[in-house]
Amino acid sequence: MGLKVHGYPTSPPVRRVLLALAEKELEYEFVFIDLLTGQHKKDSYIPFHPFGQVPAFEDGDLKLIESRAITKYISYVYADKGTPLFDKDPKKMAINLVWLEVEALRFDAAGQKLNAEIMVKPIKGLTTDEAVVEQLGAQLATVLDVYEARLGESKYLGGDDYSLADLHHIPVINNLMKTKIKALFDERPCVSAWCKDLLARPAWQKVLARFDK
Amino acid sequence: MGLKVHGYPTSPPVRRVLLALAEKELEYEFVFIDLLTGQHKKDSYIPFHPFGQVPAFEDGDLKLIESRAITKYISYVYADKGTPLFDKDPKKMAINLVWLEVEALRFDAAGQKLNAEIMVKPIKGLTTDEAVVEQLGAQLATVLDVYEARLGESKYLGGDDYSLADLHHIPVINNLMKTKIKALFDERPCVSAWCKDLLARPAWQKVLARFDK
Ligand SMILES: N[C@@H](CCC(=O)N[C@@H](CS)C(=O)NCC(=O)O)C(=O)O
Ligand SMILES: N[C@@H](CCC(=O)N[C@@H](CS)C(=O)NCC(=O)O)C(=O)O
Repeated sequence: MGLKVHGYPTSPPVRRVLLALAEKELEYEFVFIDLLTGQHKKDSYIPFHPFGQVPAFEDGDLKLIESRAITKYISYVYADKGTPLFDKDPKKMAINLVWLEVEALRFDAAGQKLNAEIMVKPIKGLTTDEAVVEQLGAQLATVLDVYEARLGESKYLGGDDYSLADLHHIPVINNLMKTKIKALFDERPCVSAWCKDLLARPAWQKVLARFDK
Repeated sequence: MGLKVHGYPTSPPVRRVLLALAEKELEYEFVFIDLLTGQHKKDSYIPFHPFGQVPAFEDGDLKLIESRAITKYISYVYADKGTPLFDKDPKKMAINLVWLEVEALRFDAAGQKLNAEIMVKPIKGLTTDEAVVEQLGAQLATVLDVYEARLGESKYLGGDDYSLADLHHIPVINNLMKTKIKALFDERPCVSAWCKDLLARPAWQKVLARFDK
């Protein structure tokens, strides 16, 4: 088999891949790429990731980038291992697909930037811009209003069962829960219950046990 | 069957769906949603699209949003009709998936904003911000450098065959080719040949014949 993840342990997109592997109970090698020394922009790494980012992934001779392409591949090829991560019925799969897009283009557009502004900037010795946090918070709230309605109808975003559409949110939610943005999740009861459920997943706890410092 | 697209004829995400339907030679009803009068934010439309945008899609009782979820559904469910739009071999499909993500998160992040800045603003009586165009152009150029290398190796982004990963680019490329951003495509030979090939597709010409004013 020979699965390898090139990554940095605290990166949310990297953790998205690690979580999918954990849900599927797959073994893999973790290749540490030091973002702090710029290893991701070195000539030796670019063959794995033309945009010079993490994660990059290998399954034997197959090389992939983009966390959400990697998780989709894993959930499709290892469909019968561990937790099922997508629905095989076409109409149910279509609903999964809708919420996968919503996560990537709407939730993460705000969530990942909030993470960068509040969590990453101070680590780099930079100051969080509160006006940006305000604006991104409002953007995230609009998305969470739609989630609240959706999660009032079905237990998970993609339907009755946990799927990749939920999984993709976990690393960013985990981080935002340590910030004042937590209030946006807490004040929406269905969203709040969904977050608790997601963060308690054994596969996520396994990722944290191995990679959280 | 009863396929319906709720949309506005010049919207790139709407055209992405219309193009997938044309490639699959499927009939559908086009329900005009007037963005100029704000019909997409009215109570009557929100049940079709909780974020109040176009496109929205119906296949019988199935309601979908997000152009790229809709096209994936169409190409999967109508796999045997018209042009095949994804690879069934898992490793080839994985490569398709990578470039689908790159389009949505990297190409379109710059391309759709350039379209809004250069094409949409003047229609609304607003002035294009040249500094923003400059910055987005530089961002797009970085993406197109990676495309140039990729298209030197394989005829299409996802592999030897045209796939959804290419298709998703067409509506935005079509628009940007009418602006000074065209130069960014023209100065990269493989990208330039790829664009010509994509824009000449009969299915795209069919969409333009029906929806271009
Ligand atoms: N769309 C990509 C995003 C990857 C990404 O943003 N990675 C960040 C780490 S969180 C990175 O490598 N940043 C370094 C850089 O861009 O220089 C994915 O989902 O894999
Ligand atoms: N991610 C969505 C984007 C849809 C979108 O941005 N639609 C625009 C038209 S190009 C819209 O409805 N804009 C009106 C608005 O946001 O108020 C998709 O791919 O379907």
